[in-house]
Amino acid sequence: MIDRLISNIKKTGAPIVVGLDPMLKYIPGHVKKKAYEEYGETLEGAAEAVWQFNKEIVDHTYDLIPAVKPQIAMYEQFGIEGLKVFKRTVDYCKEKGLVVIGDIKRGDIGSTSEAYAIGHLGKVQVGSRTYAGFDEDFATVNPYLGSDGVKPFLEVCRQEKKGIFLLVKTSNPSSGEFQDRLIDGRPLYEVVGEKVAEWGESFMGESYSYVGAVVGATYPEMGKQLRRIMPKAYILVPGYGAQGGKGKDLVPFFNEDGLGAIVNSSRGIIAAYQQEQYAKFGEEHFGEASRAAVEDMKADIGSALGSR
Amino acid sequence: MIDRLISNIKKTGAPIVVGLDPMLKYIPGHVKKKAYEEYGETLEGAAEAVWQFNKEIVDHTYDLIPAVKPQIAMYEQFGIEGLKVFKRTVDYCKEKGLVVIGDIKRGDIGSTSEAYAIGHLGKVQVGSRTYAGFDEDFATVNPYLGSDGVKPFLEVCRQEKKGIFLLVKTSNPSSGEFQDRLIDGRPLYEVVGEKVAEWGESFMGESYSYVGAVVGATYPEMGKQLRRIMPKAYILVPGYGAQGGKGKDLVPFFNEDGLGAIVNSSRGIIAAYQQEQYAKFGEEHFGEASRAAVEDMKADIGSALGSR
Repeated sequence: MIDRLISNIKKTGAPIVVGLDPMLKYIPGHVKKKAYEEYGETLEGAAEAVWQFNKEIVDHTYDLIPAVKPQIAMYEQFGIEGLKVFKRTVDYCKEKGLVVIGDIKRGDIGSTSEAYAIGHLGKVQVGSRTYAGFDEDFATVNPYLGSDGVKPFLEVCRQEKKGIFLLVKTSNPSSGEFQDRLIDGRPLYEVVGEKVAEWGESFMGESYSYVGAVVGATYPEMGKQLRRIMPKAYILVPGYGAQGGKGKDLVPFFNEDGLGAIVNSSRGIIAAYQQEQYAKFGEEHFGEASRAAVEDMKADIGSALGSR
Repeated sequence: MIDRLISNIKKTGAPIVVGLDPMLKYIPGHVKKKAYEEYGETLEGAAEAVWQFNKEIVDHTYDLIPAVKPQIAMYEQFGIEGLKVFKRTVDYCKEKGLVVIGDIKRGDIGSTSEAYAIGHLGKVQVGSRTYAGFDEDFATVNPYLGSDGVKPFLEVCRQEKKGIFLLVKTSNPSSGEFQDRLIDGRPLYEVVGEKVAEWGESFMGESYSYVGAVVGATYPEMGKQLRRIMPKAYILVPGYGAQGGKGKDLVPFFNEDGLGAIVNSSRGIIAAYQQEQYAKFGEEHFGEASRAAVEDMKADIGSALGSR
């Protein structure tokens, strides 16, 4: 699956993943109105609005991008109805040829981590049959519990040829509270990064590992250091755009081959129509605004990488 | 909700939480057979088996225990059908007067953590209405992302009078890989424990905080230290029984008032009928075996606490 992700990135020339994090406040009024008319102001109604919103954005951007990253929390907040739309979104994006990174940040130990891995990346055995629960291509995983929590994911990934991105250095302002603390003179995120490299070594695609890392665009210096520590790990980079990261900040996350990183933007793409820059499209044409925002992001990153 | 948890603990005299982690291999053949006859060897069939299994165990133990802790991974592995039974289990246990700790180990940043908090502990706004998604009483939370990830949970808890248990030192063998690493001469779990105490200070019930901690029974010395660092935090202690923790190991987790800790057992209770000690009940009477196991666990902990 890492090879397919890279092939998609090369094909589109865009190391970009669109974060499908559909908060209701990002969804245009007419989409919500229609959904509520049909299902009422209910969880079903909210879920329908989310689905129609996602579909429009995917339909307007799928040919430009290699991958999407639905953030499961934004669906889980609507309970079962929300999770049904998470699954529907995963399936639809896969039909469109996109690689789907489930941003689930799960992590537990032993058989519990295995259950998460099975539910999101693998297949569960029921009697003599097997079924895929959510069936994403990649998942994000929290490493705080150590190897016991990560290895069950690796096992399932190996069977299914799927991958994970481990949280190493997150994009938020307080990520340093624990992640930056010095251990033998080195920050915790470096120690985690070394484990990512170690876990990934034995599980390689053609040129990159199935085990990637999450490192925030808001910390380019740390990205540079981590790029060196984990040369074969694909880095999923959140924090571009709305969180403050810019094209030039992204350069250190990439390798000399122009690969090695994929940059996420969520709000900046899916709620582009709410920004002054794309207001001209109008609320009705929010999909076109998202498409324009993807094109601009691609140009911004391309120009930053080209001028290094 | 922390006051209700403590009141339930006092009423039952049992600082015990039953982990409802229903792996299919724990479920007796006759329960699975009946479910598969009705729904086939499908995700619905598996979910029905899980539900009937849970119900039998809850019906046989609810009067002895203050709380249950369903592990959401074990439901999530069956996709949407599994999560429906997670919700059904939460609702049923609440009807029975039990406090429900959702073992969800979520944790993200800002609005994403808020969405998890809303989905599991709060209410989501849809137009002019509000709805609860999963509606547990407590949730376990992963602190790796720092304050930005934890504070949205605290906000929702404050509104709803609910609580969280933050992962501090987990029960698994490799938990030390990151959690024990020394920072300025002190292990990371202590640094996290201090933050738990700090976050909890401003959000107190009558005698304990709404902000608790997870510390594994398998590390009693660390439990002792953390007990001192977080005197007002309730400690949720996994790792008793099947993972190796014994009654006497639990003493350091409790305060002098006999409160301050609640000990989880999952496999040891729900799959008691599979153990030699309880085999006499027979597979058909697995609920009674679970009841006997709860009584024995209560006696073991009571005797350890009594003799200190």
